[in-house]
Amino acid sequence: MNHEIDLSKYQIRTDLVLETIENQIENNGFEKTTYKENDIQVTQVTLDEKSAHMIDKKVGDYITIEFQDITDFHNRENVKTIVTKELQSLLKKANVKKEDRCLVIGLGNKKSTPDALGPCTIDHILVTNHLFLLDTPEDGFRQVCAISPGVMGETGIETSDIIYSVIQTTKPDFVIAIDALASQAISRVNKTIQMSNTGIHPGSGVGNNRKEISQETLGIPVIAIGVPTVVDAVTIVSDTIKYLHKFYAFQKDFINHPMRKMIYDGHINYLNKEVELNENDKKELFGIMGHFTEEETKTLINEVLTPIGYNLMITPKEIDFVIQHLSDIIGNGINQALHEKVTH
Amino acid sequence: MNHEIDLSKYQIRTDLVLETIENQIENNGFEKTTYKENDIQVTQVTLDEKSAHMIDKKVGDYITIEFQDITDFHNRENVKTIVTKELQSLLKKANVKKEDRCLVIGLGNKKSTPDALGPCTIDHILVTNHLFLLDTPEDGFRQVCAISPGVMGETGIETSDIIYSVIQTTKPDFVIAIDALASQAISRVNKTIQMSNTGIHPGSGVGNNRKEISQETLGIPVIAIGVPTVVDAVTIVSDTIKYLHKFYAFQKDFINHPMRKMIYDGHINYLNKEVELNENDKKELFGIMGHFTEEETKTLINEVLTPIGYNLMITPKEIDFVIQHLSDIIGNGINQALHEKVTH
Amino acid sequence: MNHEIDLSKYQIRTDLVLETIENQIENNGFEKTTYKENDIQVTQVTLDEKSAHMIDKKVGDYITIEFQDITDFHNRENVKTIVTKELQSLLKKANVKKEDRCLVIGLGNKKSTPDALGPCTIDHILVTNHLFLLDTPEDGFRQVCAISPGVMGETGIETSDIIYSVIQTTKPDFVIAIDALASQAISRVNKTIQMSNTGIHPGSGVGNNRKEISQETLGIPVIAIGVPTVVDAVTIVSDTIKYLHKFYAFQKDFINHPMRKMIYDGHINYLNKEVELNENDKKELFGIMGHFTEEETKTLINEVLTPIGYNLMITPKEIDFVIQHLSDIIGNGINQALHEKVTH
Amino acid sequence: MNHEIDLSKYQIRTDLVLETIENQIENNGFEKTTYKENDIQVTQVTLDEKSAHMIDKKVGDYITIEFQDITDFHNRENVKTIVTKELQSLLKKANVKKEDRCLVIGLGNKKSTPDALGPCTIDHILVTNHLFLLDTPEDGFRQVCAISPGVMGETGIETSDIIYSVIQTTKPDFVIAIDALASQAISRVNKTIQMSNTGIHPGSGVGNNRKEISQETLGIPVIAIGVPTVVDAVTIVSDTIKYLHKFYAFQKDFINHPMRKMIYDGHINYLNKEVELNENDKKELFGIMGHFTEEETKTLINEVLTPIGYNLMITPKEIDFVIQHLSDIIGNGINQALHEKVTH
Repeated sequence: MNHEIDLSKYQIRTDLVLETIENQIENNGFEKTTYKENDIQVTQVTLDEKSAHMIDKKVGDYITIEFQDITDFHNRENVKTIVTKELQSLLKKANVKKEDRCLVIGLGNKKSTPDALGPCTIDHILVTNHLFLLDTPEDGFRQVCAISPGVMGETGIETSDIIYSVIQTTKPDFVIAIDALASQAISRVNKTIQMSNTGIHPGSGVGNNRKEISQETLGIPVIAIGVPTVVDAVTIVSDTIKYLHKFYAFQKDFINHPMRKMIYDGHINYLNKEVELNENDKKELFGIMGHFTEEETKTLINEVLTPIGYNLMITPKEIDFVIQHLSDIIGNGINQALHEKVTH
Repeated sequence: MNHEIDLSKYQIRTDLVLETIENQIENNGFEKTTYKENDIQVTQVTLDEKSAHMIDKKVGDYITIEFQDITDFHNRENVKTIVTKELQSLLKKANVKKEDRCLVIGLGNKKSTPDALGPCTIDHILVTNHLFLLDTPEDGFRQVCAISPGVMGETGIETSDIIYSVIQTTKPDFVIAIDALASQAISRVNKTIQMSNTGIHPGSGVGNNRKEISQETLGIPVIAIGVPTVVDAVTIVSDTIKYLHKFYAFQKDFINHPMRKMIYDGHINYLNKEVELNENDKKELFGIMGHFTEEETKTLINEVLTPIGYNLMITPKEIDFVIQHLSDIIGNGINQALHEKVTH
Repeated sequence: MNHEIDLSKYQIRTDLVLETIENQIENNGFEKTTYKENDIQVTQVTLDEKSAHMIDKKVGDYITIEFQDITDFHNRENVKTIVTKELQSLLKKANVKKEDRCLVIGLGNKKSTPDALGPCTIDHILVTNHLFLLDTPEDGFRQVCAISPGVMGETGIETSDIIYSVIQTTKPDFVIAIDALASQAISRVNKTIQMSNTGIHPGSGVGNNRKEISQETLGIPVIAIGVPTVVDAVTIVSDTIKYLHKFYAFQKDFINHPMRKMIYDGHINYLNKEVELNENDKKELFGIMGHFTEEETKTLINEVLTPIGYNLMITPKEIDFVIQHLSDIIGNGINQALHEKVTH
Repeated sequence: MNHEIDLSKYQIRTDLVLETIENQIENNGFEKTTYKENDIQVTQVTLDEKSAHMIDKKVGDYITIEFQDITDFHNRENVKTIVTKELQSLLKKANVKKEDRCLVIGLGNKKSTPDALGPCTIDHILVTNHLFLLDTPEDGFRQVCAISPGVMGETGIETSDIIYSVIQTTKPDFVIAIDALASQAISRVNKTIQMSNTGIHPGSGVGNNRKEISQETLGIPVIAIGVPTVVDAVTIVSDTIKYLHKFYAFQKDFINHPMRKMIYDGHINYLNKEVELNENDKKELFGIMGHFTEEETKTLINEVLTPIGYNLMITPKEIDFVIQHLSDIIGNGINQALHEKVTH
């Protein structure tokens, strides 16, 4: 029996730079700084031309905010504070001035909960542009417009075409766009906010080469804010296989009697333990599959699930409550970053 | 005591041509035809330059569909049939061809029920444009796009600016726009659909001179479909005073003992009776106010209600159910008029 | 011509005690105290057996909170503070203890905006009862259940039957019920909160003699919180006629040239001026109708509008935003009154 | 290295009898009949005391309707027809008479899309009970009430307590309850309707021993209608591993060169091929894990995912549209089964 496997490339979909970087064996000189505040992990990555090219992402700054439970009021407030702070830092880096006009764009489909983050965030945005038409409002407020352009299935129109035309009409000085993303790891779904100054590709998930909305194409800063709200089944399976290796390694290490639970009570989080299975164990436990890389595993699972129609994009059962909280956090974070006078 | 009243002009707001015409003493040569089908009254009015100028409306065709109870399933189906038929006739008059591309625009604010007719109708529109990008769909379908541009309070952007830019981008061959209107008569609220080929003025109700979306400004047919969903308090009061005259006249005539009810059981619809109060009765019953014209009455009531903040725009309590039914009727009426293959 | 009018009684519908009292010529010994705080007018009325009988209301305490603009954030916070304070005072009067269990009931139809105040308020209620089943929560929280029983048109069941059976099952120590009301004055719609300890009659507006939910029938305190969100057309017309008298009287007084406006710029709020038309002026201006009492006017207008189907229940155009704010104010006011630990 | 694994029991959650039966090695004399109509698979299973005991389910009739694409209008109509027919047959078996009164109960949480099937179905139910209070309606209609009792997290009350009390008050002759379920197979999620006459256990999924609502406890027929809308991550992984075996077996068989794809184009549905891996292949490919039973695999994956918080309940991304269609299908299917006069 011949065990070579012809692994055709599984087109892995992730919108998160942190995930792309993690998959790289070497650090390749990315500029990366991290800090932790109130249990929230913030990672700043800057890609130059070389490093961006290497991982097929765009040149620019990427900020990843990782948090746990946003059903808790205080955690929500803490995340909101960091969203505001990091957004302000991106705006400053982009030389956005106090009087610059902003267009906020809520991408996605209001009628599909896991895709509704953008439109729901727009509902929280403090829109002021029309007030400036009548009068000069109180100091401390910026001119802000906001739109939810919908999705092509609803409008029949390329979303990027709508955005382009609205930008040409309203002539903002910078753009902030919010969208729901796909992740490559269960652990990040609904628990990560990514911000970058590298623009957006509306509808890019579908696989078409849509027009890019970015500083390069428009000449104005375009800041993207996204949260992964879905993963595919392939990811869930491949993550589990990864955890399975870790689980066995941990058990072997923990009780020195691999596979036999003794004092282990099932409540230890083994993920942050520094243990590894050796090659022999892998072979014995998992056969040939034990030697696959993560990418090979994903490719294989994709080949298994796709032809039978089970490579679903999925979302946790609680998605309605999550979207409600996340749109509040991001919407209010944007308001505070844009308007000096807004402080809560 | 001097009873001259300085009646400054009350800026009466109506979006219905039928109401404007009714207020004219003479018919002024309007071309007007009517028919009745299944208890639905249809009035077609064509304004030429002279007559349009006289009533300050735009040159073109106006179709008014008046109906009663749309909580009844069969009545809804009958109204839908007429909407389809009359819309087809407007499209034919505008030389719209089978292969012409349509943009349907839902004006108004989704979050405010009486103003949500446009966006709710869009939810029923069969959008096909994007399918033509991939493939040629089955014969009998037209290329249709649809957008709900929102209102300025939500977006901060002039609605007409958004529409202009989307039209420039999508380049449709004709436009259909749906909006909630204001009426000048209680009796028409939620019971009238007006269609015309004279274009739209988004946000015109607010009093600003917004940009017009019409054949004149865009060079393509722009068909407007509207339903009055609100009246102002002035209208309710002035309508009631009008009915009060009629009521007294009817009672006087009916029992020959004015003001004294005898056999009258309170259930007779006196509105369609051909009776009038004479000048003496008017004076005795209503004093000086009895001699005011309807316009003078409205002007006065406006002066009374406006400074104390009570000239509210109001809507019947059942508005949620009404908007649900009307958007279904109009949305499906449009689908049938646009796509040969859609028949129910 | 004989001008006697047979005024059959117009069954005036109001759910507000303040309105009933205002219509009384004499004060009849009601115990009534008022105070004003941050532009919010609070009136406390206590009806004993005699006074309650006289105006056909129930014995007990009625608190009326009148405010103006709740689109303003600070006004909302002020109203919320007073709702909390007055509700606490009603609970104290009813001897509700710290550990007593509460059932909050949201009356009305979620799907009809002007009737959705009750169910929308329930969405804001902090429900804790089930947490006590598992564990004793942190001190400072009370056991609270909440239901929205729906309306008979949705469920087919008498709402009071559902409430009775849920009360028998959950055995609360006291009940708080929230409902949308009807008013007899335009000026109070959406601008008044009434609280009382006299119980509720679910669905009583429809005219049926539904079962009462009250201390008398259940043996536990039942506090009702209501906001008038609708008026009928009769009220709008009769209010306007009242204002019209005042308007003329003000003009006559103001410029000493009755009916002739000179320096008057249309922006003076004449309602709080102490002026009256004399009988002669009334006759000259309004004829026989000028001598009608408010009740006679309402009766007449009702006779005019009812047979032709135009005595609509109506609500202001902005009802969606109003319900959103009011349910937030009342829901959070209740939370603060019920739970010591909730402070904002 | 010792490979024995102490597999503590993974508490597998499924609400579908068909899934429980499939996991049985022998058929154990279940009475089971199947038919196929318009690509819809219908399976009728009757459990007697012995067989019910064996699989820890209740005695009674279970009907499972399996379908594919309900985004297609015709498929929806076909499924609706079968729901009506099978529901009628269950009602007949339960001796439900023409004049018997029905209470329809929509279980679940309206605000959480994957759990909203019950309440959303209630929105489609033709409620008639209150009309019988006023008048005898047209022949061909049955007395029907409907409630959505909410979930304990919203109300603070045990859902079964609310249901019990409403049943005691309304005294229906039979009950139909609709709920969203959990499945043990990806392939069934949103693609299966289960109907049974064995009652319901509201909130049973949470693990508490809630009160049962059934013929045994209430003395009236209780028909349950459910659709699996969620699976847990364990199921997705274990299903994939099962498919992986099949996939390898198919490849080996197909090209006689195991693991080497040649003519295989990735679009063949290998699931219905009758192929199996031999024990040697299993060992070589998957090591020890290759010899696990499905139940052992699930137990293991549960042990891996639970301590790290990743055994999520998940739902497909399209859940909003699915719930919309399914509630329409089931609601209208119920209406047709209950009312002779309702035919579409």
